[in-house]
Amino acid sequence: MNINTNYLNLEESYLFSTIARKVNEFQEANKDAKVIRLGIGDVTLPLTNSVVSAMQEAVTEMSNSETFKGYGPEQGYEFLRTAVKEYYGRKNVELAPDEIFISDGAKSDLGNILDVFELEGTSLIPNPVYPTYLDTNVMLGRKINFLNGNENNNFLPMPEDGDGGDLIYLCSPNNPTGATYTRDQLQIWVDYANKNGSVILFDSAYETFIKDDNLPTSIFEIEGARTCAIEFCSFSKTAGFTGTRCGYTVIPHDLVLNGTKVNKLWLRRQTTKFNGVPYIIQKGAAAVFTEQGQKETRANVAYYLENAKIIREAFTELGFWFVGGDNSPYIWIKCPAGYDSWQFFDKLLNEAHVVGTPGVGFGSNGQGYFRISAFGNRENVIEATERIKKLFR
Amino acid sequence: MNINTNYLNLEESYLFSTIARKVNEFQEANKDAKVIRLGIGDVTLPLTNSVVSAMQEAVTEMSNSETFKGYGPEQGYEFLRTAVKEYYGRKNVELAPDEIFISDGAKSDLGNILDVFELEGTSLIPNPVYPTYLDTNVMLGRKINFLNGNENNNFLPMPEDGDGGDLIYLCSPNNPTGATYTRDQLQIWVDYANKNGSVILFDSAYETFIKDDNLPTSIFEIEGARTCAIEFCSFSKTAGFTGTRCGYTVIPHDLVLNGTKVNKLWLRRQTTKFNGVPYIIQKGAAAVFTEQGQKETRANVAYYLENAKIIREAFTELGFWFVGGDNSPYIWIKCPAGYDSWQFFDKLLNEAHVVGTPGVGFGSNGQGYFRISAFGNRENVIEATERIKKLFR
Repeated sequence: MNINTNYLNLEESYLFSTIARKVNEFQEANKDAKVIRLGIGDVTLPLTNSVVSAMQEAVTEMSNSETFKGYGPEQGYEFLRTAVKEYYGRKNVELAPDEIFISDGAKSDLGNILDVFELEGTSLIPNPVYPTYLDTNVMLGRKINFLNGNENNNFLPMPEDGDGGDLIYLCSPNNPTGATYTRDQLQIWVDYANKNGSVILFDSAYETFIKDDNLPTSIFEIEGARTCAIEFCSFSKTAGFTGTRCGYTVIPHDLVLNGTKVNKLWLRRQTTKFNGVPYIIQKGAAAVFTEQGQKETRANVAYYLENAKIIREAFTELGFWFVGGDNSPYIWIKCPAGYDSWQFFDKLLNEAHVVGTPGVGFGSNGQGYFRISAFGNRENVIEATERIKKLFR
Repeated sequence: MNINTNYLNLEESYLFSTIARKVNEFQEANKDAKVIRLGIGDVTLPLTNSVVSAMQEAVTEMSNSETFKGYGPEQGYEFLRTAVKEYYGRKNVELAPDEIFISDGAKSDLGNILDVFELEGTSLIPNPVYPTYLDTNVMLGRKINFLNGNENNNFLPMPEDGDGGDLIYLCSPNNPTGATYTRDQLQIWVDYANKNGSVILFDSAYETFIKDDNLPTSIFEIEGARTCAIEFCSFSKTAGFTGTRCGYTVIPHDLVLNGTKVNKLWLRRQTTKFNGVPYIIQKGAAAVFTEQGQKETRANVAYYLENAKIIREAFTELGFWFVGGDNSPYIWIKCPAGYDSWQFFDKLLNEAHVVGTPGVGFGSNGQGYFRISAFGNRENVIEATERIKKLFR
């Protein structure tokens, strides 16, 4: 037996381990310094009351033989798929319940979806990018073309003739840049995909951060998307489920390749290689869609967006170029002249005791950029931005 | 873009849908008949008190920002990996904590493990078999050889020279047959794998049902297994987690193919395409390994094994040939002369109002056999066996 040698082509990422090492070394040498972390891509607010109550109730159900649940449907309980369907309905996107697949998170599905496609063909992947897109393609030995994000296109690359791309990865609002595609831009992508027979893998994990009514929160708000797109969404950032694990993937029945519904292939993949999300977790996820649950999660998102606003205002005051932070929890700033991503990281750490994420860690086009996250607590965000303003004023 | 055309080679399984249809039709036509289901491969006892308390506590932790947990380690929290390590230690199997990977169940890992191996090479798969082994190989277009289980080998096939097999699937205690390999038999398999450079994928999901101290409950009790085997285990049948979703996979550091540790590849696979099991569920799983948790789960397993004993005694009395049910929750009986699997199904349903699973649904070598499950409640098991005895006496 031999290994899958494509794995040997993966680059080791030292991004977060290097950050951790540098922060530890600094803290060792400066024991009294209060280091503030704005590098984190994880939520910090706890689960809301509606979710907690629903899960407590579900745990109790599991303790009683009358209400105990064994194997559930691999694609998710109907109560949760219906709740997702109604959520889409409120944004005027009509879905059938069996177009929705409940999963343990967008990361799993974004990787596993490649199972149902042929290995030949090219993937079009943004640079900079969430590393999972790239690594899962490298693992399969797929051909990869990059979509260049840069200051000129506000880190929202658009297709050009000849780009090709059988699979196209789009993430909006974007991780790591926080940039968000407009309706017109997504229409161009959908038209491009339909013309070329491409499939768009649309990562909408940050959709609840969109506050501008003109921006689409789902690819299926765009005409023609049902024949060319799959959408991956998650409760992780919406409802603080990063450690609770639930997401959903939407595959329209109209997405047909060579006479076969991709929806049907994915159902077969999931029933064969997955056993569903815990009943307890699905009950918690369903509570997110109740009226009270929506109110609570909106409050949490508003809290993070207020943090983002404070960060935006600080960098506006300093005259830094940036995108994001208006409809997303990330602010992607251009480092001041003379600093590359890591030099800026060191400067912030050593002189402001603030930790962020070097943009180059997300791809070569991230060199000279820096990601600041709004997932901290208010007090720390205010203190960090005051220190940064003092340092660069 | 084209689909993965290997999916078109999958056979549709109508096993459980056909059973459901036949039972519904019978019940429609015989409204007063009390149908007893001994076909189920799912647990029926609720989660135990230790597990429920641990999960209630964990849900409460998630509601408080001081104790809230965001992203956890993809390979599982150390508290749970240590508990699994100690569990193995009690059967004199020494593992390092980083040889243990917590997952959402054996089914997921048994399918996903194929990611880290080359596509070329042959899989050796038992017939009859748990359908996931076969289907996940078909999805990748891998070459497949079958290992024939039959009455002569008590449904415990052994290797023969020339069988080849780069990947070898073994399941003991077996689903669907309930047959359990002895230590000597597994030693022959391990020696065969080491000699041929094969990897054994060992499914031990039913290991807690082994009550005979002479039978191995882990492949790693066998000398030489650390260089050729991966073990997949689950809380599903041990602790009633079929709807709660937690398992673990053991990959020893000594399993090295072409100079690369398979453990390292799997870690990379999981950190890239998986985001870990919910914290709440991992806390519940850890409670299974406490002294009280072990006591409770042993009581549940004993309950199912007592059911199995009642079923065995009935078929012994009737003079049917069977395997299983002594160290497993399944009894695999040979249908009486003149009955194939489905004819026997119809006879039991129509005349005893008892539902089981036709063996042919698990592969061609299951033709003429029938699976009875002990996962029912005591009263029903007693009534069903009385009816069967009356019918065939």
